[in-house]
Amino acid sequence: MAYLHRLKVRYGETDQMGVVHHANYLAYLEEARTEFMAARGMPYGALERAGIGLPVRRVELRYRAPAFYEDQLDIHVSLGRVRAASILFDYSISRPADETLLLDGAIELACIDLESRAPRMLPGDLRARMEAAAKE
Amino acid sequence: MAYLHRLKVRYGETDQMGVVHHANYLAYLEEARTEFMAARGMPYGALERAGIGLPVRRVELRYRAPAFYEDQLDIHVSLGRVRAASILFDYSISRPADETLLLDGAIELACIDLESRAPRMLPGDLRARMEAAAKE
Amino acid sequence: MAYLHRLKVRYGETDQMGVVHHANYLAYLEEARTEFMAARGMPYGALERAGIGLPVRRVELRYRAPAFYEDQLDIHVSLGRVRAASILFDYSISRPADETLLLDGAIELACIDLESRAPRMLPGDLRARMEAAAKE
Amino acid sequence: MAYLHRLKVRYGETDQMGVVHHANYLAYLEEARTEFMAARGMPYGALERAGIGLPVRRVELRYRAPAFYEDQLDIHVSLGRVRAASILFDYSISRPADETLLLDGAIELACIDLESRAPRMLPGDLRARMEAAAKE
Repeated sequence: MAYLHRLKVRYGETDQMGVVHHANYLAYLEEARTEFMAARGMPYGALERAGIGLPVRRVELRYRAPAFYEDQLDIHVSLGRVRAASILFDYSISRPADETLLLDGAIELACIDLESRAPRMLPGDLRARMEAAAKE
Repeated sequence: MAYLHRLKVRYGETDQMGVVHHANYLAYLEEARTEFMAARGMPYGALERAGIGLPVRRVELRYRAPAFYEDQLDIHVSLGRVRAASILFDYSISRPADETLLLDGAIELACIDLESRAPRMLPGDLRARMEAAAKE
Repeated sequence: MAYLHRLKVRYGETDQMGVVHHANYLAYLEEARTEFMAARGMPYGALERAGIGLPVRRVELRYRAPAFYEDQLDIHVSLGRVRAASILFDYSISRPADETLLLDGAIELACIDLESRAPRMLPGDLRARMEAAAKE
Repeated sequence: MAYLHRLKVRYGETDQMGVVHHANYLAYLEEARTEFMAARGMPYGALERAGIGLPVRRVELRYRAPAFYEDQLDIHVSLGRVRAASILFDYSISRPADETLLLDGAIELACIDLESRAPRMLPGDLRARMEAAAKE
């Protein structure tokens, strides 16, 4: 089942087309993903303090309808696939006020050693928690 | 042949991982795409003043290697496909200093009427110029 | 008395110094200011729909201590001065976890007609509500 | 005499008021300031690699007129004051197309040790170069 994170569009996130600029959705998804990880007992900041990073390796987004200033957005995060050295998150964003789907997509994170920036295996603890979440 | 746009990474575009934050590449690609369109005689601002918008409908990006503060980046833009009501741009970003490929991907733009936000056909002039560019 | 708005630092708001990049505080203050106005019965979006804008005219900020990723921040907004065609907001940002003051400052908004972009008087309703808030 | 840096407004830097969002000027000023420092033989990246940071401590900006998408902006940077552990930069931004002043202001940078984040004296070399620049 998807984790739900709710947020509100900031003024500076709109552009002159009068809608949320497409780049800002990546910040929304990142906020939702880290809230999801924290809720699962794996706050992302703690991972980094342990020397492990999860940089974004792949992004696939489809923009279905625009979001507007002051909109409340529902961001649904779920786990698509957990591998030895990567995690795939699936997302959708909807606006509850009119039950409109605004965006769906997927983001893959790689696992790296922050010191060397080399790829590494997911820590066992993180992998176990993410696999458990993927099965729900 | 790809259009080349060169830019330099800003400090505020980095994040605490010490690299360019993944969301900022969308701004780089947008800058390169609009320079490409202007070089083809279709500045994007003029399109909007004529009541036509080209919002982003789909994004697919693969991040291959990180970019750093003060890096000069080469952004290569080419036309993937021109349809009646959409344009697909293909991109790659490389760092000439060490000839590293940093990112590749594609972004699809829809064509809309800015007043109604409804989809519409590409203006004939824009379509002809983009089709000519796609054939090079 | 100051209005309190609380938010959490996003990953992409940090820079390679490992702290929140200074430009992002303007987004925090804007979010807090618009929440304050909404709480006072004057949502900023409604003002714009009525053809009135409140662009930023002056910013004065002192950065006292850095904020970090995942920090919860308390943003205190109060009204400094309400004039015929401008409003001055006073701010401070603190981190409750260690009771540290991070920033204080002021931002002045001008009132304009959105169509002509010319300065205009504050609508009577907005002025009355803001003056009432300033007296608290 | 002021150092001149020229840049072009990106689409994503506008907001729904149809002008450059006020927070983005901080990115413009930062870009101009670091180009100025590099031109003076002190690239900011090299300072950080030597363990020294120059975080922003104070910002004072007056917004005089709006900037628009695709505008070319002239950013004028000069040194206001060089002290033992801080540097004050003065700025103005104008649009050469219609010779309009858009913004002026000042930004003070503190000097810190990046490891401890404690204040420290400016390195002698940096201070000498900045003082020389201030006298021009």
